[in-house]
Amino acid sequence: MPLWHIYAPKGAYAPAEKERFAVAITDLYAKAGLPKFYVSVVFQELEPNMLYIGGKSADAFVRIWIDHIARRMEPAQYDWWMHKVCKVVNAFVEPKSFAWELHIDETPMPLWTIQGLRPPAGGSEIEQKWAAKNSATPYEGGTFAKST
Amino acid sequence: MPLWHIYAPKGAYAPAEKERFAVAITDLYAKAGLPKFYVSVVFQELEPNMLYIGGKSADAFVRIWIDHIARRMEPAQYDWWMHKVCKVVNAFVEPKSFAWELHIDETPMPLWTIQGLRPPAGGSEIEQKWAAKNSATPYEGGTFAKST
Amino acid sequence: MPLWHIYAPKGAYAPAEKERFAVAITDLYAKAGLPKFYVSVVFQELEPNMLYIGGKSADAFVRIWIDHIARRMEPAQYDWWMHKVCKVVNAFVEPKSFAWELHIDETPMPLWTIQGLRPPAGGSEIEQKWAAKNSATPYEGGTFAKST
Repeated sequence: MPLWHIYAPKGAYAPAEKERFAVAITDLYAKAGLPKFYVSVVFQELEPNMLYIGGKSADAFVRIWIDHIARRMEPAQYDWWMHKVCKVVNAFVEPKSFAWELHIDETPMPLWTIQGLRPPAGGSEIEQKWAAKNSATPYEGGTFAKST
Repeated sequence: MPLWHIYAPKGAYAPAEKERFAVAITDLYAKAGLPKFYVSVVFQELEPNMLYIGGKSADAFVRIWIDHIARRMEPAQYDWWMHKVCKVVNAFVEPKSFAWELHIDETPMPLWTIQGLRPPAGGSEIEQKWAAKNSATPYEGGTFAKST
Repeated sequence: MPLWHIYAPKGAYAPAEKERFAVAITDLYAKAGLPKFYVSVVFQELEPNMLYIGGKSADAFVRIWIDHIARRMEPAQYDWWMHKVCKVVNAFVEPKSFAWELHIDETPMPLWTIQGLRPPAGGSEIEQKWAAKNSATPYEGGTFAKST
């Protein structure tokens, strides 16, 4: 459900660090009750002259953008969430003295599928089952109906 | 108008397969009346340790995300559309035993241009002309006015 | 705040051209009052068989997609803005006879951070200070509060 894109300088994160970063992100959502396998993180390594900030080539910069799908936050939750997100990201960019920027978009939940299944309602019993099994299993009403 | 991003393992799809996949996607929209050249598909091949699902490196996974621009669906159409999309995608991921996930966002039509032209209203006569010619041709009202 | 993604054929733009392109984009926003460092541009070079338009491999095509964060335009401003954007893009794609397409999405400002700081309100005194210094500096209320 959340799809994180992390643009980082080429070679900035070794595979083991990427995994730790992805695990820390996954834990953020798991603690909020989401199945772990909902969390996708794509790392894109940027060569020099791929990223420009303010018109200047930026080679010590991490740019992150995220799509949220499974949950739509209430405005009252924004700060709470951004605080958590910043803490996780800071732990991985500050030690390397990277500058960074991040933004989140929210996209419509009904236009989302995992393995061709319709993910269950947030917080529902079926979602809890998916979380416990950490995989998408068929359920009644879980397929998209062919229209007539 | 729709921009599809397909993240697939490096080498998973040969050029001829990519073309068949892109053609199948294009046909989905063409059958709904859209000009074929509206449909863009970008394939991104992922090396190992670029994609993490639930905190684990995933190398047999296809992650697709899509922007819809030219049409905003009614909620009543969601299932109909997702059913069609899943059928097309399944045909290309199941034979390879890939797991997959896909989501669609909808973006504002007035903030869209092809070749500097404003694409015509959905279903309009001019759109039908664009579809028939399969290219964007100038028309009255088709440029963005310079403000004074 | 705006994050531009520019997909162009591999080798189409030399580093110096990319920089001029990024500077022209940055100036668009700077003239509208935004701090220059708000503007991120990512160039992605596409190999053959990465981009398909209407089901056909497209190797003389520039596809641009943009997220706007710091400002949400009024519909009355759309044309004015698209006119400006097209002018800048045309200057870089027409000389190379590339076809092109571009679209913009708008994402929620409260779900955005630079260096862990909450960017100040658009047009505020603090934003003007950030613009003058061309960097994000801490200010009162500029951090995301930990919830209790």
